[in-house]
This record gives sequence, structure tokens and C-alpha cells, in this order.
Amino acid sequence: MATLSDIAVSAAINSLSAILFLVAFAILRLQPINDRVYFPKWYLKGIRDSPTSSGTYVKKFVNLDVKMYLKFLNWMPAALRMPEPELIEHAGLDSAVYIRIYLLGLKIFCPIALLSFAVLVPVNYTGENFEELKTNMKDLTYSDIDKLSISNVAPGSSRLYAHIAMAYVFTCWTCYTLYNEYMIVAKMRLHFIANERRRPDQFTVLVRNVPPDADESVSEHVEHFFCVNHPDHYLTHQVVYNANTLADMVLEKKGLQNWLTYYTNKYERHPNKRPTTKTGFCGLWGKNVDAIDFYNEQIETLSKQEEAERERVLNDPNAIMASAFVSFRSRWGAAVCAQTDQSHNPTKWLTQWAPEPRDVYWDNLAIPYVELNLRRLLMAVALFGLTFCFMVPIAFVQTLANIEGIQKVFPFLRPLIEMGSVKSVIQGYLPGIILKIFLILLPTIIMTMSKIEGWTALSALETRSAGKYYLFLLVNVFLGSIITGTALQQLKEFMNQSPTEIPKTVGVAIPMKATFFITYVMVDGWSGVAAEILRLVPLIVFHLKNTFLVKTEKDREEAMDAGSLTWAVSEPRIQLYFLLGLVYSTVTPILLPFIVIFFAFAYLVFRHQIINVYDQKYESGATFWPDVHRQIIIGLMISQFLFLGLLNTKKATNATYFLVPLPILTFWFFRFCKGRFESQFRRFPLEDAMKKDTLERATEPNLNLKLYLQDAYVHPVFKGSMEFERPRVVDEEENSPLVATKRSIRRRGNQGNQEDNAEDIMVSPEGGSKAGPSSRKW
Amino acid sequence: MATLSDIAVSAAINSLSAILFLVAFAILRLQPINDRVYFPKWYLKGIRDSPTSSGTYVKKFVNLDVKMYLKFLNWMPAALRMPEPELIEHAGLDSAVYIRIYLLGLKIFCPIALLSFAVLVPVNYTGENFEELKTNMKDLTYSDIDKLSISNVAPGSSRLYAHIAMAYVFTCWTCYTLYNEYMIVAKMRLHFIANERRRPDQFTVLVRNVPPDADESVSEHVEHFFCVNHPDHYLTHQVVYNANTLADMVLEKKGLQNWLTYYTNKYERHPNKRPTTKTGFCGLWGKNVDAIDFYNEQIETLSKQEEAERERVLNDPNAIMASAFVSFRSRWGAAVCAQTDQSHNPTKWLTQWAPEPRDVYWDNLAIPYVELNLRRLLMAVALFGLTFCFMVPIAFVQTLANIEGIQKVFPFLRPLIEMGSVKSVIQGYLPGIILKIFLILLPTIIMTMSKIEGWTALSALETRSAGKYYLFLLVNVFLGSIITGTALQQLKEFMNQSPTEIPKTVGVAIPMKATFFITYVMVDGWSGVAAEILRLVPLIVFHLKNTFLVKTEKDREEAMDAGSLTWAVSEPRIQLYFLLGLVYSTVTPILLPFIVIFFAFAYLVFRHQIINVYDQKYESGATFWPDVHRQIIIGLMISQFLFLGLLNTKKATNATYFLVPLPILTFWFFRFCKGRFESQFRRFPLEDAMKKDTLERATEPNLNLKLYLQDAYVHPVFKGSMEFERPRVVDEEENSPLVATKRSIRRRGNQGNQEDNAEDIMVSPEGGSKAGPSSRKW
Repeated sequence: MATLSDIAVSAAINSLSAILFLVAFAILRLQPINDRVYFPKWYLKGIRDSPTSSGTYVKKFVNLDVKMYLKFLNWMPAALRMPEPELIEHAGLDSAVYIRIYLLGLKIFCPIALLSFAVLVPVNYTGENFEELKTNMKDLTYSDIDKLSISNVAPGSSRLYAHIAMAYVFTCWTCYTLYNEYMIVAKMRLHFIANERRRPDQFTVLVRNVPPDADESVSEHVEHFFCVNHPDHYLTHQVVYNANTLADMVLEKKGLQNWLTYYTNKYERHPNKRPTTKTGFCGLWGKNVDAIDFYNEQIETLSKQEEAERERVLNDPNAIMASAFVSFRSRWGAAVCAQTDQSHNPTKWLTQWAPEPRDVYWDNLAIPYVELNLRRLLMAVALFGLTFCFMVPIAFVQTLANIEGIQKVFPFLRPLIEMGSVKSVIQGYLPGIILKIFLILLPTIIMTMSKIEGWTALSALETRSAGKYYLFLLVNVFLGSIITGTALQQLKEFMNQSPTEIPKTVGVAIPMKATFFITYVMVDGWSGVAAEILRLVPLIVFHLKNTFLVKTEKDREEAMDAGSLTWAVSEPRIQLYFLLGLVYSTVTPILLPFIVIFFAFAYLVFRHQIINVYDQKYESGATFWPDVHRQIIIGLMISQFLFLGLLNTKKATNATYFLVPLPILTFWFFRFCKGRFESQFRRFPLEDAMKKDTLERATEPNLNLKLYLQDAYVHPVFKGSMEFERPRVVDEEENSPLVATKRSIRRRGNQGNQEDNAEDIMVSPEGGSKAGPSSRKW
Repeated sequence: MATLSDIAVSAAINSLSAILFLVAFAILRLQPINDRVYFPKWYLKGIRDSPTSSGTYVKKFVNLDVKMYLKFLNWMPAALRMPEPELIEHAGLDSAVYIRIYLLGLKIFCPIALLSFAVLVPVNYTGENFEELKTNMKDLTYSDIDKLSISNVAPGSSRLYAHIAMAYVFTCWTCYTLYNEYMIVAKMRLHFIANERRRPDQFTVLVRNVPPDADESVSEHVEHFFCVNHPDHYLTHQVVYNANTLADMVLEKKGLQNWLTYYTNKYERHPNKRPTTKTGFCGLWGKNVDAIDFYNEQIETLSKQEEAERERVLNDPNAIMASAFVSFRSRWGAAVCAQTDQSHNPTKWLTQWAPEPRDVYWDNLAIPYVELNLRRLLMAVALFGLTFCFMVPIAFVQTLANIEGIQKVFPFLRPLIEMGSVKSVIQGYLPGIILKIFLILLPTIIMTMSKIEGWTALSALETRSAGKYYLFLLVNVFLGSIITGTALQQLKEFMNQSPTEIPKTVGVAIPMKATFFITYVMVDGWSGVAAEILRLVPLIVFHLKNTFLVKTEKDREEAMDAGSLTWAVSEPRIQLYFLLGLVYSTVTPILLPFIVIFFAFAYLVFRHQIINVYDQKYESGATFWPDVHRQIIIGLMISQFLFLGLLNTKKATNATYFLVPLPILTFWFFRFCKGRFESQFRRFPLEDAMKKDTLERATEPNLNLKLYLQDAYVHPVFKGSMEFERPRVVDEEENSPLVATKRSIRRRGNQGNQEDNAEDIMVSPEGGSKAGPSSRKW
């Protein structure tokens, strides 16, 4: 156990390393050569120009202006200066709401920290259980820090009522803040949706599990079904091609083209020597050939294959999946279709609000209902295995990857390995490295699991992965640090304990682990965030690409990797800090300032990154907020149960009865908020849809919506080459319901006229410029 | 513990009492005087006439035809003769599906019983653990019946694999049957809805939480909102009056009128003596007055009050609740509105598919969102208290209601009470009687709780109450019989045991309680069902009413109490039998035949009752089936966990690992079925709505729907007196969306025309005859 001075030293070291990162960042970002690494967003927006295009040769790469170095911290106020509405406009709602999570952390923990320092620290410090503990229990190590924690209060002391009161105050404050924040985010989302420009997904519904029909193709079947069941609203639809093989080919071709560019550049720099390569894997073995010719040939072969595959996909009816993007005449029609059941078989004609085109995850669009259910079951079992038994396969690999194994696979390394010192290093570090590799691969594994589960939007994949990762962190980092032993051992132990015993076991250990978590916050939180702003990996990759691949300005543009918020990884980590803060707020308040500093620092850094760096791949309109809210509530309830367990061991059974309503009320609060807000994040209310429709009809009466939506939901590999078959224009005469009546005939006639009108009218400039979503600015 | 012969005796006694009930029923039902008690459904349908109207005086009351007594069991084949489609036509889908639950029990347990007698009984019988047990464990009592149960298999024996295999077979069979049954019921429901005559609820949506508006009344606000947001589909609406006080008055008046009739009849029979009554409570004390004058006066006063109240309700804007029944031009429009979110505030403008008019629970139509949530929270806490702590208040009442207490309240009873034998009887039975009274009151208490929770339909109230009652039975009858001690003690014990320990504790006790449950099945099941068919209480009440109140044929009609299925009470009881059967199928197969007999007998009896007696108050179209399905699955999973616990104590830990996937797969099956079927019971799919609309438009193009729906959702106290304010006919010129466009103007024009057409055309006879739902046949 660390003493206060140990923590001070650790804080000093970590602050220093964070400051070092910041200084490195401050210097590197001023160099013109790094400008594209640290300000890519502005380049992507076309607002910033390469500074390398002017000035002397040296100035192109190094900044010699001394004055600028003196103001090396001025990015901090700059990051805070942009007002929120402008930030939403600039970076999208997702990003703006993401950094609000840090702000929420500050809002929750600043008052809690102040209050607990004002009330709990004095109560604990004067508790005088410490000397007693020191003398009585010599097997457990206590430190100075425990003088400030609940450990210093004697069992059964009436001082514990102060902690119980504070638990109520903290819960109320947290819930109040959460409620306010939910309301603000919901308002922001509403405002965002109301002010949004016209977007294809507002008019479109993703239809899955189209039942097969013996007489009709998928396209015809979809058209007829929606013409019959949404006669006044159906506009057009877009079938989904299974272009996964084609997409792979496009990717492979791009890789080959990179190699070709590399060798062409090399040849241009040394024109006297034609570069060669080997034909085998990664150019490592095989026979020597002329590299430029070799890659030219390869690309040509692949191009032909790609063309054939493209032809096949477009003409083979089996390449059309049982899904479609169906578009409607109005937002109202789309909202209705997305929210209702179409068929009496609820596993057919499944409709949902379409993700925006960039957000679609194309591979998962055609999974039958039973298979989808089986996949979810398997992945639930796999998640359980991953969380509780992940050490089993790792231990297995660790036993395989010993010195003898390495010698067998790479015999040429034998002399090196047999040196005594190298051998011991390998034996000592290899297991640790394998674990580290697993932890680095973990987000990818989790993302793959989410993909197997069959979600159809990237945003859904990210939030699902975040949920899984949160579970993993909760079990293996939080509980794993408090209770020693692997998760599987913990699980076994818990299964054999009573439900009231588990919080006790964990609760007792909590105060003792405070110093560990303080260090964790500093290493993972402070230094980690500082490393984020430095962007070391993108920096290196950019310079490598810049050296070997870049020829034109456009190449440089492509070499720039702006990156984006890695939601599936970052969000669960933030949640861990919320959990730590809530758990320790009543137990060891000394942890809270560290958490507050983390939230403040991370808020600054990520605000800067969002403004200057990240380029979001899609915009979901903050649909993730209900998950954030839920996870914080889960953290709150965990903290309450653990506090209950802790108090039970303090022989304050009477006092603990006061705490029982707390989790019940918290759960009720959760349900209340869910009912009050959640559907605002899941559905498009008809009132708002109608408002937007009416407004649009008034301001742009001549809009040709069909043209606008025509190619919105095309698989990305077909973008640019628009030769694929379009669903033919709906023949209005076929739209009739089964039995024609006066009214429907009259209405149909109207629609026909209107359609004709619309087709006749010239496409307005705005409508025209927005025909493809790729050409629009978001 | 009972031996096999004990059980045989008990079976004989119970069979005998059941047969006695049946004989009594057979004799009583043949008497013409009882005809209205045993065949009220036919009278209500107007098919059967009073047999008392012809024949000699004696024949009017007693059946003297000896031949009919010989065929006294012929109601049984008669009950089975009616085919299911006719049954649905005759008694409604709810009733037809209700008796399918018994059929489902037969389908599940007949094969299971056969299989377990073929496999498990021989395996158990040759197990030869019994002699050992008898000698080793003298403190526990074992009986012959245990020779046939799993107790007779030695711990760790490989014979247990037979039980595990059977557990899998039984689960698979149960799931297969459940799936099939779900599919059949869903099809029946679909077919029922598709063939249903036009019903107001098909076109109507219940809108709750209409937000207050400063400038408009509720009625105007509703009209404007739906005109704007459902311009093509909105037809009309009906506001909801807070007529609860008025309804109470109407009820009170009816009671007074009954008394008046009673005294008038008395006077007519003895014209020489005018009857008198006392003015106090129930005519027990107060001064003597002339009864007929007194009640005439009372009724007159009340009528005036009622008239004033009626006036107030119709004119006071505060008497209009923030709810409305909104009707649409088509089923499609109503289905859309019911399934979508209207407002961005999901606590306002809540829409749901309207219950049919008879099914509406009027008192709960206007509860604000926050209050509704608070009520649910409170009732959840209350349910927990009721289930686990119900013995606390009962014990309290039992201590109060002792001999001294009774003597204080009723001093005139003192001499009687002080007789030794009476005193001991009171002291011995009073606590038991108080408990019995509580158990009789329990369904009412639970129903009140559901009413407080704020459900808006009687069908919802019944299913919710059934769920609560099932929990109560599960904890207090099933667990309470297995483990001695009150539920609260059990809960405490369980809280201090590990999650794996609980199934063990319960599992061990299960085989020992088999004989108890066999007796329970016979007493509660066999005799209970036989008592149901005898209808003793309605028989007595009918004859009392017939003697004292009936003057005209119409009075006799009203005196007839057909009753209905008491879903909230009967369904949980059936579930208990499912649970018992599933739990004991692998443990003590000897219980299964008793369960099978119960299901077969109950099926017969209730089929008879449904055909001849019950008159359902409403028709929900079997919306309760998902609950039935869920509860059987819960029973299945409980049986699996208990079997797991039992095997654990059999020292067959290796074998138990085979059982772990079973509950996981069962839970997955539940989720699968939920996704596959549940929405068919909750929502009206657009495809079907459209089909029905189109058909109707073709067959009845001139239907005046507005007239048909006009008074459909009127509070029952206003039925008959139709002077209340109708929402004025929608002025078509006001329907326009905020900004008029070419298209909407054109459409509006059409609607206007159409509306005019419809109003001009004469109301077709069928449409006209169905204007009020009360006048229709269902």
C-alpha cells in the first residue's frame, strides 16, 4: 500500500510525462511539415492550404518563429473558444455530444468532490479507528490515505450516518444532473434534426427479410407490396446487391496500386536502376522480377476480374439480397413505415428507419430471422466466455510460445536465442507481451463479434461493441483489480456465495484499493489523454506515406489520416471513470480530485481534437446517448450495492436499512427517464416529420424528390460507375390497391398528374447539386 | 408421509366427492326451475325460452322424465360435440382459446407421462437406494412412493443419465408443443380479426396525456392536432368525461330500486300489511318508516342529484379528461396512429390501439405520466410486500380478533362465547378463518392494485392481475409448501445462501413433497373443477332474487347471473399445474397421471361452461396468449433449475454440466418466440388493415363511417340518454396543414367532395343498425 507521499511522487511522474507529451505536441504542431497531421479537419473542409507552398525551403519543414514557441499552450483557450452551435455545425452532433460526456463528468464530480471534502474528509479524519486498526489487524496493510477514508471510522459508529446521508445527496445530485443532461441532449437532437438539410435517410426505410416470391423478382415484389400498402406515400426503392466480393477486389486493387506508386517513385528518384521485387508473399521470396511491370500486370488482371464480377453482380438475380431501401414521398410516410408492422408475420418485411448512407454496414443487410437469432445466442455465449474465461486461451498460447517453439519455427534465430540474457528476457516478457497483444486486439475481436451479431449500421456496431467492452472492463479491470484472481475464479467464488455476501466481499476490499485506482487514473487517464493529442502513430504513418507514396497534392490529401472518435473503445473507458468516481465518492473522497482533473483535461484535449483533427465517418444524431445514460446509472447502482456491502461489514445493520430504497429509487429513475426520453432517440415523431414536410413543400414546391433519392443508397463500390440497373419508374397505373374504388382512383389520378408535373419541371440547382450524397457537405 | 395406499384412499375420497358434485349437477340441471342457472348463455342469445311457460304447474319446477335422469352424463359428449369454429362464433375467441390451455396441458403431459412411466419408473424402481436410505437416514421419512421416484437412485449412479436425457426430451417436447400452439393461436387470431365484423375499435385510437392548451378546449386541441398530423386519415373523435361520480350514483340508484321492488312485491303478496324499514344502515336501526314511500322518496332525491351531476359533467370543461378516442377514415390510418410516436415529447399524445368499447376501464383514462410512473413504483413495492410479508398484517389481525375483542364489540354474545366448547372452537378456528378470508379477498386486493397501476382496459387489468396472482401462488403455495416457514423467512434464508445453494435446498425437498402435491391436485383440481360446474353460489343467488325481486320476464332475465371466466384467478391456477407437472416429470412421475386427469376433466367442464353458461364481458381476441406462453416457460425454467439443484445433491456434478445448456436454450426459445409471434398479439399489421379496408370499400362503398363511430365510445352512463355534446362535424376548411400547397389543396378538395357525398347518401341499413355497440351482437 502506498502512502500519501508515494502518491505524490506518482502524481509528479505522471504529470511530468503528461506535460512532456504536451510540450512535444506543442512543438510538433508548429512545424509546417506536420500541419496535415494536426489539422487535417481543416484540410478536408478545404479551408486550410498546405503551408509548404510558400516560403523558403527550410521554412517549409521547420517553424523558426520563436514567438510562436512561447505561446505553446495557446491551443487550450483556442479549443474552448468555439461556441457549441458552431461546433455542431463544424464537427457534427455526434462529436459535440461526445465531449459533453466529459463535461457531464465535471458537472457531477465537481460538487461531489467539494461536498465530500467539506463533510466526509473531516468526519473520517477524526474517526480515530486508524490507530486501533493498526494495532489490531497487523495482517492487513493500512496507509495514511486510509485516515481520510471510511476505514478510519469505527464499526457501528454513528458517524456512518454522515456517509449514508451523503450517499443520498450524491445519488440525487447525479440523477438530477443526468436528467438535465438527457433533456439538453434530447433538445439538441431535436433542434439538429429540425434544422438538418434534406437527407436521404429522412425519406427512406430499410426493409429486411423480404419474403421470396415465385413469380416476381425482389425488386418487383418490394414495389408491389409498398404500392399496395402505402399507396399514397411510396415513391421508389433501391435493391441491395451482394457486392462483398467486389468490395474486396476494389480494396486489393488499391493495395497493388500503392505498391506500383512506391516502385514508380523509387525508379524516378534513381532512374539508373529499375526496381525489382519477388513474386512471393509480401515480396519476401520467390523469383526476382521487374517490380513496375509486375504490378502493372497484376493490376490489369485484377481489373478484368473486377469488371467480370461487377457484370455478374448486376445481372445475376441471386446477387440481389432480400433487402431494400424504400423511399417515400414525405418524411411522414417514411416515419410511418419505419414505426409500424407491415406483415402479420413479424419476421417478414421488417422495417426500420434507414441509417444515413455512410452509416450503412452493407455486409449484414440480408440475414434471415432464425439465423439472426442463432447468431445473437452464439455471441452471447461467446461474450460470456470472453469476459470470464479469456485467460484460458491466452495461457494456452503462452505455453505454446516458449523458447523451444520459437526455435522450431525460426531455426535461424537459434544462436541469438541461446544467449543467456536474451533467453531470460524472452522467458520473462513473452507471456506479458502475448497478454498485451490480446488486449490490443480486444476491440477488434469485440467489433467482429458485433458484426457477427448482424447489426446493419456502423453506429449500432459501435454502441454494441462499447457495451461489450464496458462489461469486459467492469469484470476484468474493476472487479479484477479489487479481488485478485482471474474472472473465472471470481465467478466460481460468487456462485458459491450468497447474494448479500458478494457486495460485502467486494465492499471490504474497496477502500484498500483506492491508491491503486489513483495511480490507474493518472497513468491511463492523464498520460493516455496526453498521448492522444500527440497522435504519434498517425504522425509516423503520414511521414512514411509522404516519403514513399506521395507524388501529387491529391496523394498527400489521401495520405492524411484524420481518424475519428473510436467510440467502441473510448466510451467504455470514460464509463470506468464514472464508476470509480461514484464508488469512491462516499468511501475514499481523496480519489475524486484525480477524476475531476481527468475529466477537465480530457474535455480540453478532445474538444481540440474534434475541432482540428477528427473526421467523423457518419452522423447518427447522438443516438448513443441512451446507452451513455444507462451505463452511468449502472455504475451508480453498482456503487450503491458495494456501499451497502461495505456498511454491512461495518456492523451498522440498522443504518444499512436506510440505504435499501436507494437502488430501488435509482432503478425507478432509470425507467422513468427511459420512458420520458428514449423514443426521441429511436423514432421520428410524426409531428416533427409533418412540420418539416410542410415547410419543405412550401419553400421548394418543385423539388424532384425521386431524382434526389435515386442513387442515395448505392453500394459504395458502385459509386462513380452508375451503370447499374435502376428500379424503373413506377407505372402509376399499377399502383392501385386490389380493388379500385372511386376515391382511390381519384387520388391515383392526382398523383399521376403531379408526378408528370414534377418530371417536367427543371431540376432546381440545389436539388441537382445534391443528387449524390457523396458530393454534399454535411 | 403417505404411502401408496394412503394416496389410493385420498384419490377415492376425492373422486367420490367429484362424482357427488357431478351427480348433483346432473340432477339440478334437469329441473326446469334451474334452467336459467345452467344455460344462461342460450337465454342471453335469445335462442332458449323459459321452460316454465308450458306444461303443468309441477312440471314447471321439477323434471319428472325418468329417462333423462338415466342419461345424466350426456352433457360430456355434448360439450365435446361443438366444433371449434362454431365455438368461436358462439362464445368468442377469448373463451375458445382459454380452453385450449387445458388442451395444451393434455398435449404436453400425455406423452411425457407415458414416456416417464416407460423409462423413468423402471429405472427408479430398480435403483435400490431405498433400503439403504431407510437404514441410513432414519430422521427423514420415506415412503413406498419414493421407490418410484428419483430418491430411489443412489447418489452418483450412472442411472441419473437417464433422467438427464429425459429432461432434454421433455423440454424439447414442451417447447415444440408450445411453439405449435403459439402458431395455431396466432393463426386463429389472425383469422378472427380478418373475419370480424366491423368494430369501432378497428378504426379508433385511444389518445392519452393530451397536453393542456391555453387557447383551446381539449376537444378542439385534439381535433386540430390530428387534422394537422393525419390530414388524410383523421375522421372524428370523442372526448372522455370524468363521469365516475355519476356512475356511482347510477349504481346506488339501481340498488335502491332493487329494495323498492322487494318491498313492492312483499306488499303485493300481503296487501293487508304495508312493509316498514329502518332508516339507518342496511335497515338495521333508526326509526321505522313506510318502506315503499321511503325508497320512492330516496330514489327521487337521487334522481335529481343525478340529473344535476349529469348536467355538470356535460357543461363543466374541467369534467373533460385529457384523453380522447380518435377515429380514422380507415383501419390503416388507425393502425398507423396507434403504432407511431406523435409528439417529440414521448409523454404527451400517447396513442394506443383502443380497447373495444365494452373493454374500456373508464376510471384510468387520465393519469399523467409522472403519476403513472409513481403508481407503478408503489404497486411494485406493494406486490413485493404482499407476496413476501402478507403474513405480518394477518398475524396482527389474528392477535386483535381474539375472544376478548369480540366480547367488547358484541357484548350481547358474551354468554354464548363463555360456553367452554364454543370458546375453544373460536380460539382454534378464528386464525384459520381470518387467513381464509384474506385468501378469498386476495384476488380483489390484487385487482385493486392493478387498477391503481392505471391500466386502461379490463383485459389488461385481468392479465396483469393474473401475473401478480401467479407470483403469489408460486412463492406461497409452491415454494411455501416445499420449504416450511413463511415467505419472508424463506426470502431471508435465500438472501444468505449462494445462488447455487438455493436450487439445492429446494431440489432436495421436492421428491419428499410429491404426496402432498398429489393430494393438492385432487382436492383443488378435481373437486374444485367439479364444484365449478355445480355453480352453487349463482344457483342460490338466482333463486333468492327470483323469489324476492322478480316480477316480469325481464326481471328474471336480469336476475340471471351468467358470470364469466375469471381470468385473473383461473389462469394462474392452471399455471400452477403446469409448474407441478414439469417439476415432477423427471423427479416423481407418479404425479403426472393426476395432472393429466385434471387437465382432461377441466377441459370437459370448462368447454361445457363456455358453451352453456359464461357470458364474456369483452372480447380481446386472445391478446393474453403471450402471457400464458411466458408463464409456462417460466415454469419450465424453474423446473430445470430445481432439477439441476437436485442432481447436485446426488453427487453427480459431472452429469449436471450436461444440464447447464438447457435453461440457456429454453430462454433463447422464449426470446425467439417473442420475436416471432408477440407483435401479432399487440399490433395491427398494415397489410391486413389495408386488405380489410380495401374489401370494405369495395363491398360497402356508401358506408357512413362517421355515423357508425359517432357514439361508439360514450361512457356507459350516457348510453341511452344521448343528449351529451357531440364533437361538431369537422369543418373541412380547417383541416389544412400549416402551409397550403398545390397537392394538399387538391387532396383536401377531394376529401371535401367525398365527405359531402357520404353525408348525402342514405345510411345503409346495416350501418344504421350498428350505430351503438350495445345494440349489436358480437
